[in-house]
Parts: sequence; C-alpha cells; structure tokens
Amino acid sequence: MENLFANIYNTNDTICALATPIGISALSIIRLSGPKAILIGDKIFKPLKIDTNLSEASTHTLHYGLIHTKDADVIDEVLIGVFKSPNSYTGEDMIEISCHGSIYIQQQILQLLIDQGARLAKHGEYTLRAFLNKKMDLSQAEAVADLIASNSKTSHKLALQQMRGGFSNQIEELRKQLLDFTSLIELELDFSDEDVPFANRDKLSDLLNNITKELNVLISSFSVGNVLKNGIPVAIIGKPNVGKSTLLNALLNEEKAIVSEIPGTTRDIIEDIIVINGIAFRFIDTAGLRNHSSDEIESIGIEKTYKKIDQAVIILYVFDVSQSSFKEINDDVSEFLEKIEDKNKHLILIANKTDQLIEVPKGFKNLVELETIFISAKRKENINLITDSLIKKIESQTNYNNTIVSNVRHYEALINTLKSVEIIHSGIDNNISPDLLTSDIRTALHYLGEITGNITSDDILNNIFSNFCIGK
Amino acid sequence: MENLFANIYNTNDTICALATPIGISALSIIRLSGPKAILIGDKIFKPLKIDTNLSEASTHTLHYGLIHTKDADVIDEVLIGVFKSPNSYTGEDMIEISCHGSIYIQQQILQLLIDQGARLAKHGEYTLRAFLNKKMDLSQAEAVADLIASNSKTSHKLALQQMRGGFSNQIEELRKQLLDFTSLIELELDFSDEDVPFANRDKLSDLLNNITKELNVLISSFSVGNVLKNGIPVAIIGKPNVGKSTLLNALLNEEKAIVSEIPGTTRDIIEDIIVINGIAFRFIDTAGLRNHSSDEIESIGIEKTYKKIDQAVIILYVFDVSQSSFKEINDDVSEFLEKIEDKNKHLILIANKTDQLIEVPKGFKNLVELETIFISAKRKENINLITDSLIKKIESQTNYNNTIVSNVRHYEALINTLKSVEIIHSGIDNNISPDLLTSDIRTALHYLGEITGNITSDDILNNIFSNFCIGK
Repeated sequence: MENLFANIYNTNDTICALATPIGISALSIIRLSGPKAILIGDKIFKPLKIDTNLSEASTHTLHYGLIHTKDADVIDEVLIGVFKSPNSYTGEDMIEISCHGSIYIQQQILQLLIDQGARLAKHGEYTLRAFLNKKMDLSQAEAVADLIASNSKTSHKLALQQMRGGFSNQIEELRKQLLDFTSLIELELDFSDEDVPFANRDKLSDLLNNITKELNVLISSFSVGNVLKNGIPVAIIGKPNVGKSTLLNALLNEEKAIVSEIPGTTRDIIEDIIVINGIAFRFIDTAGLRNHSSDEIESIGIEKTYKKIDQAVIILYVFDVSQSSFKEINDDVSEFLEKIEDKNKHLILIANKTDQLIEVPKGFKNLVELETIFISAKRKENINLITDSLIKKIESQTNYNNTIVSNVRHYEALINTLKSVEIIHSGIDNNISPDLLTSDIRTALHYLGEITGNITSDDILNNIFSNFCIGK
Repeated sequence: MENLFANIYNTNDTICALATPIGISALSIIRLSGPKAILIGDKIFKPLKIDTNLSEASTHTLHYGLIHTKDADVIDEVLIGVFKSPNSYTGEDMIEISCHGSIYIQQQILQLLIDQGARLAKHGEYTLRAFLNKKMDLSQAEAVADLIASNSKTSHKLALQQMRGGFSNQIEELRKQLLDFTSLIELELDFSDEDVPFANRDKLSDLLNNITKELNVLISSFSVGNVLKNGIPVAIIGKPNVGKSTLLNALLNEEKAIVSEIPGTTRDIIEDIIVINGIAFRFIDTAGLRNHSSDEIESIGIEKTYKKIDQAVIILYVFDVSQSSFKEINDDVSEFLEKIEDKNKHLILIANKTDQLIEVPKGFKNLVELETIFISAKRKENINLITDSLIKKIESQTNYNNTIVSNVRHYEALINTLKSVEIIHSGIDNNISPDLLTSDIRTALHYLGEITGNITSDDILNNIFSNFCIGK
C-alpha cells in the first residue's frame, strides 16, 4: 500500500506549509516535516541568546533567533519549535517556525525553505504521514479533519472521541473476534479429511452472534451520529396561518441566530441551522398541512411536506390555540399521528397565539396527552421553553461515552462487514466447507480494515486527505 | 507614566487572545501572558506522555497534552509552549497554546481561560507589556506593527531594521551627546557666580553642530523612508492620446498586478499600487498636459496635474513617437523641465507607439539628453525596460544600512528636537544664562524621549497600540 501511495506523494520529501490561516495577524506558523527538516532549519536559522543549533537541540524545545537568506539578509525574528522523530505529529523530524503574521514574511520564509530543498505540502499531507508512520489509524486521521470543521459541541465531541481512538479500539476488538473465529475454523480445517461436521458449531455461532450484535449497535448509532454531526432535523408543521414562519423567526432570534455557514449546502438550508446550547438544529420549513384536499397542486405540496417530515427527528406541530377547540386539535393531531405512525419521531405540540387569549386554557394537556408548549411567536413569549425541550430531548438520548459512528464511509464499511458476517453465519448453517468460510471471513476483515486503514487504496486516501486543510 | 497607563490597561491582569487569524486551519495559537499565565495553564492542561506540569517545566519547552474543562471534558489535544519571565515576548510568564484550527475550539479555550481568571487582551497589549517591561523601546514596538503590515521588500526591510533597534541606538547616541552637552553647561553653572562667558564655547558649538548634522540626516531620510513605506509615487504624464492609460495597464499587466489592499486608502489608489521586485510603486494618474490652454476648466485640470507631479518622485513623460518630430519633443520636454525645475525628480522619457514606426529613430537620445525608452504600450513591448529602470533608480538611491526614518511620529519628534537644538545654539550665540539653556536642553531631550518612549502619555500609547492586531 505504501509503495502504491508513494506514486502520488513522495514520502521521502521534506514538506513545508503555512499551518495558520493566510492573513495579517500577530503570529503565523510554518511547519516543516521530513528527513531534512532540521537540517534545512539550521541553514536558515541563526539562534540568538543561546548559541545552539537545531540539530543539537533536544526535542520539544523552543529557540529564539533570526531567519535569514543565503546572503545573510534577515527575514524575521522567530521562535522555532523542534520535534525529533518519532516524537512529532508526523512521526518524522519536524520544526515549527512561529513568525510575525505578515503575508510577505510568510511567503519569504516558504520561498527560503523551498530554495533549500523542501517542497510545498499537499492537503492533509502531515496527517497522511502521521497515518503512514502509524501515529494514528485512518479513522483517527479522518477525525482530525472533522475536529477542525466542528462548529458545535456535539460535532466537536464526536470528532474528538474518534480522534482519541475510542472507535478504533472497538474496531480492533471486532477484528480480534473475527480472528479468533478464524482460528476455530482453521482447527476444523485440520480435521477436514475426516469429513465431520463442525465440532464447535455452538461456539462459532455464539461468536458470530456477538459480532453481529456489536456491529448492529455501531450501525444504528449512525442515525444519531449523522444528525449530531450535520444538525438535528426539526420540522415545523401545521395548518396554514398558524404562525410557523413567525415561530421560526422567533427561534432564530431567541438564539441570536448563530447560523453556521456550511460549505456545500444551499443557502436555504444554511439560514435555518441554529446552534442551541452547542447542539446544531436544522429547521425544515414545510408547506402548510391541509387534510382532504381536492386541489391536485395542493396535494403535491402536502406530499412534499410528509417527505420532509420523514427527514425530521423532531416535529414541532403548531396550531392556533385561539382558533381551535380542544376537540379539533385532538382530532387533527390524532390523524397526523396515524399518518406518521411507526416513524419514531419526537412530537411537540406548540399552542401558538396565546397573545389572542384572555387566559391560557386549562386541562389541555390531559386531552391531547402530548407535551404541549403555549407560546406567542409574535410576542416572542416562551420560545425558550421550546429550545429547552429540544435540548432535553437530544441530551437524554445521547450517550457520548458510547461510540457514535458519524462518518458515512465507516457506516458503509460496517454495513458491508455485517453482510459478510451474515454470509458466514448462513454458511455455517448450511455446512459449507471451512475453506470457503475463511474466504468470507477474509472479506469481513477487509471491510473492517478499510475503516482503520489496514486496507486502503490511493483513491480512498486521496478522497480523505484532499478534504484536509493545507498544513494539517 | 506606568501609573497613568495602568488606568487604561491593568498590567497586573493575565491576558489571553487568539494570535493567529480567525478561520478554519491546521493550527491556531492562543497566547496567555501575565502573573497567573502558567498557573491558569496548569488548571486546564493535563500532560500526556511526560507527566510534568507547566509550573515545573523549564522555559522554552513544548508540552503535549489535553485541554479540559473543570468537569474533565476534553476540549482538544494541544501543544503548549512555556516561557518563564523574563524570557518571553512580554517579559512576563507566558504560555502559547497550539490547538486545532477550529473556531469552536478557539472559542472554548478562550472561554476556559476567562473562567480561570484571564481577560481578553486589547489590541497590541502583548507588545505594550513588552515595552513597559523594557523588552523593547517604543520605536521598536511601532516597528512590530509595521513589520506585520509590510507587504513589500522595502517596507519589510525598514520595519525589520527599526524593530531590531538600529534607529533606537542612533537616538540613544543623540541623547548621550545632549547629556554630555548638559554636563558641560552644568560645569559653567558652577562658575556662574563669577559671571564669565562660556569657557568652552567652541566645544559646545562643535557638539551642537554634530547633533544638528545627525538630526538633519535622519530628518532628510524621511522623504525616502516615507515613500519606501507607502510606495514610490510615479506620475505618468504627457499630452492627451499619447497612451498614458494603455501604459499604466501594460505596467499592471507586466507585473501580474500584485495590487496591495491597503486599508484606509481609496479604491482609486489601491488599483495603482504595483510591487515590482519587492518595491511598491504608487502610480499617479494625471490628466493630459496641454500648453497654452485658453479653456478655463482645462487650465484647472492642468494645474491639478502639476500638483500631482509635485507628489511624484519619478516622472514617466510619455509622448507619441510616431507623431512627434525631434524638435517638438525637445521643445516640449525642455519647457516641462523648466516648469518642474528645482523639484529634484527623476524624469524618464517614454517614446510610445513604436508599433506605428517602420524603424525606431536613431540619434534620438543625443538630442533630448535624457533617458529615453522606446515602447509599444499597445503591444506590451519593452515594458520591462521601464520597470528595470524604476528599480535601478530606487535601489541606487537606497542604502538600507543607514537608518531610514519612515514613521511620521518620529519625523515630527525629530523636527521638534532640531528646533530645540537650534534654539540652544542661538542661546549660546546670544550668551543667555546657562540655567535657561538647560531648560531648552530638557525640551530637546523630551522630544527625543518621545521617539523611544522614555517620555510618553496615555494618548500616544493608545494611538500606537490601538493600530495593532489583537494577540500581538
């Protein structure tokens, strides 16, 4: 694998890049990694105060001095951090130059490094080297990019946990169980001439059941992980003119519209992401619900609304409390609940337009038997009760101590692993030959290996690392 | 002075700030400086691999570990650089946290630091502390901001030289000479009862002459320093339709329009700054020259052109070589030279529209006796000869080994110092009493002290540091 990969990125090169954003600022960091990193550093660096060159310096020390050209023209006063292999991010010799945050200086220093034989790093090439040098596995490397892109408490927690190896350990555990399974099968192979059925069929079955169970837990965590990473979808529904848009605006306003700009999503969706208490909620606008419509065009609109409800995890069902009788609401909600039955959604009733009531009706909750929040979207009253309820719903459901899969690539690999395991299981049930089984096990191991990067390809690596920042 | 200043900035606080630009990137640096910097660092940092807390760590060492909340929630894996007073940028205890370049993480870490008792730093507050702790004088502190803002070789060189103390040393030398002078005067004061004239009048006069000479060198360097810092003003002039705009576009094109965006300047001026070989040239557009105009409005335009020529250091005088006879050009240029006489400009003749000639005329140079460059602006031919000539003119005039004053505040202080020295000189010539003289010397020392910051005020410091980045 490493040989193949060397075709794309030469890992013998010493690479350099700006690791901080381009722009005028107090400080910038330029990173240099590779076999000649410290040698090149010494060529352009003159220490001040303490006369130690970088080659003689201990790892994890900081050195104050001047960056200069071949002609001894000073470029900047800098601090250089020295990291000696294998004790660095990449596992290679590294230096980090902390210079003044001037674009001119950044360019000059990079130019000097290139003149001395370094080359500009490609996207994610430092993390790629960390992966190739076994400082982290592939799922951890992916988490580094997720961590940098994280913009809420939840996406941050998921990425950090993955980066710190929680998920990797679980995959490793599954891999070991599959290898144990292989040992048992191979034991059978030794006796295959005698043409007896599996001696340890029960044990094999138990092992497979256990693996299947663990795979299923991970796979089902993806539904949570995916929404936590990309924002919990919340649908605001209700009949026309009950105040859905006013409510959405009030929610945006309540949370001072910490609206995320997520690259690649459309402007419509961007506007509706609100981070509340560190959790991103993605509000889905819907057309008004109307039952028994004879109008064909309107029916299409309603169909679309139900499709959007399908995407939602939480539904805010809004009605006009000043216009509706208890019975009407009860009937409407019951009908709606029937339509979305089995869809496993959280439904919150929002009794809007309390500003048009003299007094909030009592006994309402008993009748509808669903959590009901009385608000005035127009006056922005009690909007916080809605956000409190949203937060509570998510936090009670999320256990960050368990592994939560949030990466589509991992999800697909787990699904493929599960399929292979099911094939193995039915193979045992059907008494297929042990050597055919070992081939199926190899397939399952292959898919698990894709997650951690034991098995990989140029395409996979390119896909993953091209999404990284330069300098990481 | 320090007491006064403490009213604005409390120097006992521990301050924190993001030192790298806001944005998603590989790394971000958060700086913490002040008496509690290392203590606060230890409260939020758990070292990994080597179990040393920051308080026990040596200065200029890097530590790998976790940033965590009070509830042991991990925020990030980071590297922390430790700097122990006085061996830091500010002279105080400092730590620099190198975290992942996620905006969420930056905010969380800053929040943690504030919760632990740090406060957000104000613009330039780190450099202010470096100044107050005598790590640098005021002119060096100003150079830090200039260095960060520098966008060309020349502005970079000027700032770096000033930051490294070249200018400060010269001011200190002048201050010593003035103090020597004071000693001589005081010697006189001891004998003042005897009512004799100055014994050492010649020596005093020599000293003053020397100081005056050095001040004049510095003051006159400002005309160079100011243009190097802000861009060499180049006026493109000539009669209408000789191709001035085409030439400007060709110049912009030739250098691939490395156009600087300088905050606070108008869009018009931004578009005309070109960095050639690291030197910024500011091209001044002019209306066409036309002699003997009877049209009043046109006369005003021509007057404006001459005003703009006043601002220029170099003039590109463009004429249409395909339409002009030798005599015409000779007469026009001679007339022009008379008008700008004594203005100490570099004049380069640009014979444009060679594309309309069958053959470039010979003997032209002898006739006009000025550097003449034949070009076709339309075909972008020989534009590089112009840029070569511009570079040569500036480089032959600039000796970066001499101090070049580029800061208006310094320039004004030097002018004021010179005026005081002249008053002292005439005081000696007029035999005024030595105690009146010492008061004048104090005034001169005061102005010199303004440059280095020995003498300063809240207003001056505020003016200077409010132009800094946050985090510097």
